[in-house]
Amino acid sequence: MQANLREHIEKIIPLTDDEFAFVNSHFSSRKFKKHQFLIQEGDPVKYSYFVISGLLKLVYTDGNAKEHIVSFAMEDWWESDYYAFFTQSEATMSLQCLEDTEVLCCSFEDYQKLCNGLQKMERFFLEKATFGFLGSQRRIISWQTSNSKERYEQLLKQYPSLFQRVSKSLIASYLGVSRETLSRLSS
Amino acid sequence: MQANLREHIEKIIPLTDDEFAFVNSHFSSRKFKKHQFLIQEGDPVKYSYFVISGLLKLVYTDGNAKEHIVSFAMEDWWESDYYAFFTQSEATMSLQCLEDTEVLCCSFEDYQKLCNGLQKMERFFLEKATFGFLGSQRRIISWQTSNSKERYEQLLKQYPSLFQRVSKSLIASYLGVSRETLSRLSS
Repeated sequence: MQANLREHIEKIIPLTDDEFAFVNSHFSSRKFKKHQFLIQEGDPVKYSYFVISGLLKLVYTDGNAKEHIVSFAMEDWWESDYYAFFTQSEATMSLQCLEDTEVLCCSFEDYQKLCNGLQKMERFFLEKATFGFLGSQRRIISWQTSNSKERYEQLLKQYPSLFQRVSKSLIASYLGVSRETLSRLSS
Repeated sequence: MQANLREHIEKIIPLTDDEFAFVNSHFSSRKFKKHQFLIQEGDPVKYSYFVISGLLKLVYTDGNAKEHIVSFAMEDWWESDYYAFFTQSEATMSLQCLEDTEVLCCSFEDYQKLCNGLQKMERFFLEKATFGFLGSQRRIISWQTSNSKERYEQLLKQYPSLFQRVSKSLIASYLGVSRETLSRLSS
């Protein structure tokens, strides 16, 4: 499976050929190998990434050097350390490849140019941000209301393909349960 | 303390008097008494609310009829069941007054008219949605990385005034801990 930027945007808002050419000129393509970092904690965050193919993990490392998976990003997803991206500050998270990955990169300057230059793109990003917020809110409710078994089943139902692509330790880290608990749940 | 819509918007984007008059014409003011519902589960969600004064709780009730506080909203905050608002579907949450509350109401139709009629307002809502997403992401990381004592201290530090205005049971529900655990933490 390979994502396509134009199809992705046009799920929300139709673009003319000229408009898409304008949009496309604000992105550059890059390929990364499995294990490579797109963002490392402490670095400036230059880009928001749209995943064409592959799989990424966004990781927050706590004071005890324990890694927590904040999110996964696969084909058709956007990912970055967005707090650092939007405030143009240093990364507090890392973004790393779990597979060989191809992304389209959009710098903060180009993001602003897109919003200012084409109102349709501002509408597109408003829709993405709104549904990003709603997805996070749903996840908070899931933490509040569900035990680890239920959260595991919700994730399996929502993203069955993820379970073929990542290790159980990473799923456990995303769900906030121990590897042992997860083994019990998934056996 | 009383919030002011113009000052609130102008923290992000300056408006001329004519522009603010246009914006203001898309809002209506309403007052609710303590305990009154702005949104009840199962009802259509007509409005997004900007809180002028007072305090609201957004509540998700699980299958065992247990209430979970998804968020509080006080002066200068926006609140609604946003999934239902944006998809124009029935509420899965309720929004209720914890104090006598005055709000400005914006219907979904007026929200769209504002975005279409004044690009500055689309920019404003993009910024609110983006930072709403970032706030939720921070809260997810807090659930992943912190125990209940730490989450309690973070909340106290971030919103000290909340602790004067709401009961310990509500704080416990927001943090996802039992009332007994919270008493232990706050003693």
